[in-house]
Amino acid sequence: MSEIRALSSLREALWNEYRRVRSETEALASPITAEDAQIQSMDDVSPAKWHLGHMSWFFETFILRNDPAYQSPREEFKVLFNSYYNAVGEQHPRPRRGMLGRPLLEEVLDYRHEVDAGILARLENLPDDEIGKIDAVIRVGLHHEQQHQELMMMDILHVYWTNPLRPAYHGADPPKGAGTAPLEWHAYPEGVHRIGFGGDGFAFDNEYPCHREFIHAFELGSRLVTAGEYMEFMSDGGYERPELWLSDGWSTVQREGWRHPLYWERRQGTWWRMTLYGMQPVDPNTPVCHVSYYEADAFAHWTGWRLPTEAEWELAASDLAVEGNLLESGDLVPMDVSGEAFSSAPSQMYGDVWEWTGSAYLPYPGYHASPGALGEYNGKFMCNQMVLRGGSFVTPETHIRPSYRNFFYPDSRWQFSGIRLAKDI
Amino acid sequence: MSEIRALSSLREALWNEYRRVRSETEALASPITAEDAQIQSMDDVSPAKWHLGHMSWFFETFILRNDPAYQSPREEFKVLFNSYYNAVGEQHPRPRRGMLGRPLLEEVLDYRHEVDAGILARLENLPDDEIGKIDAVIRVGLHHEQQHQELMMMDILHVYWTNPLRPAYHGADPPKGAGTAPLEWHAYPEGVHRIGFGGDGFAFDNEYPCHREFIHAFELGSRLVTAGEYMEFMSDGGYERPELWLSDGWSTVQREGWRHPLYWERRQGTWWRMTLYGMQPVDPNTPVCHVSYYEADAFAHWTGWRLPTEAEWELAASDLAVEGNLLESGDLVPMDVSGEAFSSAPSQMYGDVWEWTGSAYLPYPGYHASPGALGEYNGKFMCNQMVLRGGSFVTPETHIRPSYRNFFYPDSRWQFSGIRLAKDI
Amino acid sequence: MSEIRALSSLREALWNEYRRVRSETEALASPITAEDAQIQSMDDVSPAKWHLGHMSWFFETFILRNDPAYQSPREEFKVLFNSYYNAVGEQHPRPRRGMLGRPLLEEVLDYRHEVDAGILARLENLPDDEIGKIDAVIRVGLHHEQQHQELMMMDILHVYWTNPLRPAYHGADPPKGAGTAPLEWHAYPEGVHRIGFGGDGFAFDNEYPCHREFIHAFELGSRLVTAGEYMEFMSDGGYERPELWLSDGWSTVQREGWRHPLYWERRQGTWWRMTLYGMQPVDPNTPVCHVSYYEADAFAHWTGWRLPTEAEWELAASDLAVEGNLLESGDLVPMDVSGEAFSSAPSQMYGDVWEWTGSAYLPYPGYHASPGALGEYNGKFMCNQMVLRGGSFVTPETHIRPSYRNFFYPDSRWQFSGIRLAKDI
Amino acid sequence: MSEIRALSSLREALWNEYRRVRSETEALASPITAEDAQIQSMDDVSPAKWHLGHMSWFFETFILRNDPAYQSPREEFKVLFNSYYNAVGEQHPRPRRGMLGRPLLEEVLDYRHEVDAGILARLENLPDDEIGKIDAVIRVGLHHEQQHQELMMMDILHVYWTNPLRPAYHGADPPKGAGTAPLEWHAYPEGVHRIGFGGDGFAFDNEYPCHREFIHAFELGSRLVTAGEYMEFMSDGGYERPELWLSDGWSTVQREGWRHPLYWERRQGTWWRMTLYGMQPVDPNTPVCHVSYYEADAFAHWTGWRLPTEAEWELAASDLAVEGNLLESGDLVPMDVSGEAFSSAPSQMYGDVWEWTGSAYLPYPGYHASPGALGEYNGKFMCNQMVLRGGSFVTPETHIRPSYRNFFYPDSRWQFSGIRLAKDI
Repeated sequence: MSEIRALSSLREALWNEYRRVRSETEALASPITAEDAQIQSMDDVSPAKWHLGHMSWFFETFILRNDPAYQSPREEFKVLFNSYYNAVGEQHPRPRRGMLGRPLLEEVLDYRHEVDAGILARLENLPDDEIGKIDAVIRVGLHHEQQHQELMMMDILHVYWTNPLRPAYHGADPPKGAGTAPLEWHAYPEGVHRIGFGGDGFAFDNEYPCHREFIHAFELGSRLVTAGEYMEFMSDGGYERPELWLSDGWSTVQREGWRHPLYWERRQGTWWRMTLYGMQPVDPNTPVCHVSYYEADAFAHWTGWRLPTEAEWELAASDLAVEGNLLESGDLVPMDVSGEAFSSAPSQMYGDVWEWTGSAYLPYPGYHASPGALGEYNGKFMCNQMVLRGGSFVTPETHIRPSYRNFFYPDSRWQFSGIRLAKDI
Repeated sequence: MSEIRALSSLREALWNEYRRVRSETEALASPITAEDAQIQSMDDVSPAKWHLGHMSWFFETFILRNDPAYQSPREEFKVLFNSYYNAVGEQHPRPRRGMLGRPLLEEVLDYRHEVDAGILARLENLPDDEIGKIDAVIRVGLHHEQQHQELMMMDILHVYWTNPLRPAYHGADPPKGAGTAPLEWHAYPEGVHRIGFGGDGFAFDNEYPCHREFIHAFELGSRLVTAGEYMEFMSDGGYERPELWLSDGWSTVQREGWRHPLYWERRQGTWWRMTLYGMQPVDPNTPVCHVSYYEADAFAHWTGWRLPTEAEWELAASDLAVEGNLLESGDLVPMDVSGEAFSSAPSQMYGDVWEWTGSAYLPYPGYHASPGALGEYNGKFMCNQMVLRGGSFVTPETHIRPSYRNFFYPDSRWQFSGIRLAKDI
Repeated sequence: MSEIRALSSLREALWNEYRRVRSETEALASPITAEDAQIQSMDDVSPAKWHLGHMSWFFETFILRNDPAYQSPREEFKVLFNSYYNAVGEQHPRPRRGMLGRPLLEEVLDYRHEVDAGILARLENLPDDEIGKIDAVIRVGLHHEQQHQELMMMDILHVYWTNPLRPAYHGADPPKGAGTAPLEWHAYPEGVHRIGFGGDGFAFDNEYPCHREFIHAFELGSRLVTAGEYMEFMSDGGYERPELWLSDGWSTVQREGWRHPLYWERRQGTWWRMTLYGMQPVDPNTPVCHVSYYEADAFAHWTGWRLPTEAEWELAASDLAVEGNLLESGDLVPMDVSGEAFSSAPSQMYGDVWEWTGSAYLPYPGYHASPGALGEYNGKFMCNQMVLRGGSFVTPETHIRPSYRNFFYPDSRWQFSGIRLAKDI
Repeated sequence: MSEIRALSSLREALWNEYRRVRSETEALASPITAEDAQIQSMDDVSPAKWHLGHMSWFFETFILRNDPAYQSPREEFKVLFNSYYNAVGEQHPRPRRGMLGRPLLEEVLDYRHEVDAGILARLENLPDDEIGKIDAVIRVGLHHEQQHQELMMMDILHVYWTNPLRPAYHGADPPKGAGTAPLEWHAYPEGVHRIGFGGDGFAFDNEYPCHREFIHAFELGSRLVTAGEYMEFMSDGGYERPELWLSDGWSTVQREGWRHPLYWERRQGTWWRMTLYGMQPVDPNTPVCHVSYYEADAFAHWTGWRLPTEAEWELAASDLAVEGNLLESGDLVPMDVSGEAFSSAPSQMYGDVWEWTGSAYLPYPGYHASPGALGEYNGKFMCNQMVLRGGSFVTPETHIRPSYRNFFYPDSRWQFSGIRLAKDI
């Protein structure tokens, strides 16, 4: 395209990556109506319209506004779409994001294109010696946008489920699983290992520094826990036996009346669950999804095994190719591993569902948050949350890596989260 | 129009009235976007889309469904748009009305036209001897729809105010007031009077039976309390002096941090308030609006006078023509009475703002609720609420009368409510 | 006693009455241990220790402190034992009354005797022309103390019930009923009647002014509703049928899970209830007790009749002697009327249980609160509450009269409240 | 005493230790009146009376009830004093522990002596081959009792502080500090270390197994952070700067209005704080106390350093003698280290205040909870809490050790908790 002609190849590569990620967002958002895009079905959920505004706000705030001459076309968005960056200024209160009848969705999309134009102009006009700096921030922005792609999908599923009409994000039939491979174990010897990001390319600050940890010998389950296995836990009184649960987990079960994973529903003797394809029967061969840490831990307790630590998971993942049922596969549910023979490595490590670990989300030894407002990205959340690893069926392939640390509160379960087991040797 | 040709003149009159009221609703709703129409800004507020669905649901439920052969085109709306009629069945939970991304606004409008077609068919086909019965229910339905016209306007103003962008319902400049007539008093002698609806035409069951009450001699204020007078109360420490307040009122002031009427805001030394014309400076000559019963009572206490009882108000109103700043005037704010000389009767009795009375909303002696589900319309709310009289600037003229009883909880103030004073002789 | 010798007969009469009421309080409190006396089992309940402190505080505040030379021996009690008198100053927060491990109960009793000594000294030393003023305040104080005697008994019952050990206030066996008289009706013709206190002697400001009301012809039930009759309502699905309930009542039933009166409990097929004699089987012949207004109204609805208004009750009571199962009877439960033949007047009008009326607690026409802090006694509660009439088995005989207005929120039921029916003619 | 004569020396040693710890409890409880002993000033606090009952319940439940022939003299205490052992059965709800006017304090003390007699009889009569088993459980029970000694002191301080009269636990003047040693740093090299309990004697299950951890080189502060240093943080806007805080911490600061440690209060320009000696001026030389994890972390952030991990702390403590300002010192406040020269090891490692670490409370690699109901002691709390190390001025010397893990939620601050700093090298 003509507007790129003036760009150097670095500029061009950056612009192409920018366009690729930004287009992916628009493609993901396109089935969502303006009315559905506005709903905040619980405090933790953000409306799709808000996600779309916030992703552009990120580029505007951290790149375009760095130019003192910049005039925002939508000054009022500075507060509306600030998520939690205190260093940037005030924020529209999170639980009121669903109150924004204005801006209209089409105005948010217009804003998106205005920001895109601004980024392109900046790429075209910036002196060569400043391209490096903008490059770093654009990459953060694109990974930020990919996170929000997944958040938007998690959130819209909750929105659809909240509506008694249970609309589907995708009208097609869901892909069908064929069977389940038996659960096997992969063994890893004890030793001091390097954990955290030590390579080139992009990683978030919470993956740094690469450091050493002593890991005791352990075994890791060859695949994810299936919905069928989880139903056995349920049938065995899993939700009625306090001895299986953490104390805070048991309180949550009692208070919330939990008896099954989120989105499950009993219809005439069969379990159904809400998915991006609408209400569908639970496929017992596919990984259980939408369980909290409390449920994952109680399930592991029931089996007599346990959840892996994040270091164990990372050690096991470190040699594996990043491939699996990720966003690019196009399947909008976690899938089975029926066809696979037992292999030399655990399967389903990437994609399908995020895997709860038994590790609290804490700074690595020697961790320092990024300077400036971007330092609020990760570090300030390092308390009260548990780490999940490996990505889900809506995580983009270019977004996930062995050292990637996701985190949620132990009672959260609207994310695409599941279970892998580990055991001591 | 051709479809009416087959109708008798009663049927035709009924159909004309039906069309008139239903069109008025659509005209009032037309400036509201699909996105704004969906928002529930607090539990008490219903989205405009829900109001529109519910008004049609009323006609479908109480007329169309009475024919056993009737097949609803939208069976799922039976629960979604049931407000509180337990006899009709389950209800979508009130605080979740803002979660309804589906049905889309355009589907709700389609449903509206389907119901209209059903009503017309019923009017055309019903045997003559059943027209009387349907006539009564249609009239209830139209008065119900007029109530929801006002509720929709109250609610959308709250929605617009909740949005930090403060959009306006109506883009024009608001009408301007010119001055304030002095406050005078009209005296009424003691005696036994008939209170409640005793005429022909329509009245709600809570206006029956017409009964006798002994009313002591009293005087009624010649006009509504103005915003300017209310500002004097504020300046005199009205919101900081517990001795002026009911105990529950004072708790509410403390808990909610009230310091002025709802929708007021201080900007550079001037009071502004949110209106259907957007944010506007407070006009001190026009009636104070958006005060709760607690505030009305505290204000009256401060003046040394009191609020009228509903019987006193009704006695004073009984001889007056129903005219004033009602919906038909087109002014979307309460207006002043500057031009008026002192007259033989109190002014502003109808329209402008609902007038809080000192009467609890209770059944009249000999009251019986209507039979069937329509009996849930009024009677079950006869506890914990206070009566308001006289209508507001968005009340249709054909909807208000001397005996009309509106009611709200004493801490509610998002309705168009104001103050008239009374005193003992 | 020697200290009274110097008093005039008015002073002596006042002192005797003072001593009589104050001794009654101490007798009532004597079975309560220091530990039980300190518990606040819900926000509405005050610990017995607090009641005892507050009753003395009342006399200290409104009499002793009126002398500028007065030095309080316990200055810190001024805030601790102020219930809600804003004009007197700050208050220890109501929901924290159970946190007062200090003062010890014995210190509160010492304070009581210090205040008694102060009152006696004041009575001895006051000039004759000031005795009239102090007489009025002492009488208010004694009626206030009698109210708190009943409140203390209500509250301690809740405290005992909260304890899973269910201790008894009184160790003896409760008196037994013998049967139930049939329900008859007494008729009253329509007319304008004087309502409110018009006699000599003491009355609270809320009983003034004596004024006229038009009362339509009605009939009043000859006795209170029995527990047996209430059990029929329960058996007939009373707590599961929304059509019987006020809307706010039904919400309360759902939210609180009400299925029977407060303090009732099912044990092996029999209903038991907590009483001042500990847990006892429900006697179906005695009046139902511990029902809320919502339950009283729903019960009346179920019978097809209704609750009386307070004016109707007062009219019926106005000619009757103040006698019945009041505090002086010594029976600490409501009793049956088995032995009584049908008589010319309703029975059980005084004592046994307070009778819910269908009247909201509002000011009478021409009402003015007392001046000064004592004006906070009644007037500021005239919103959101319903009137009860007639007293209970722990109301002192000298405290109750035809015009006496008690009031509680419609969801309250820890007071000794029951039901009498009325109907239109 | 004669009753011990029949005991073997193991039995005698056990009985002596039992008597020693149990007497210590009674000595600690003796200044608390029955009325203060009953108060639950917040849900987290248990009344002293409840602690006393629970400590005896522990011995009765896990020892006396193991004999099927045992008849409890107080069967009803089984539920009342069960804290959270689901395997033992139902529990009186925790937030209702303050509602127990019965049993009286003296009855709880009687129960205590009944249990003591039962334990003695068991020790006398048990066959030799069963003594080993009972020995283990008695030792758990005594360490449990020592924990509750500290909990009882923490809780009673909160109770006294809640009372506006602010009574003192101990009437004497508090000990005075003299100065503060400068903050120095002790360095520790990187390496794999053994962490957890690996010795003989008693340890809780959460200290097992002894395992290896890789610890990076670090430095540890030579003493605790002082109140004076903490005041500098406050003066520098510590409570107003979100960038210093964890996100959940900042929310807590906002929601709770925190501006200083718990129990601090500004009086005429000077900071005072509630202590077991009543209200006392803050001594800037003594360790800051009653800070939450959020505050400890924000303070560390402000200094540019950080909190130690629990492994770092344990490594530094492993060679040190267990001595310091512990319960046996008799000082009921944390004390300064003024007199001390810089030494070869950090001071104040034991006693004074519990030291927040940056480690989440999680199971050690290979951890297994104890079997049976005692397995509920520690494991089920391994989520959402942070580890504290080293004991406080009310921790008994025989109760603390290098591997001892205490844990609290990050927003808790009524425990005796303070701050030690660490840094990376």
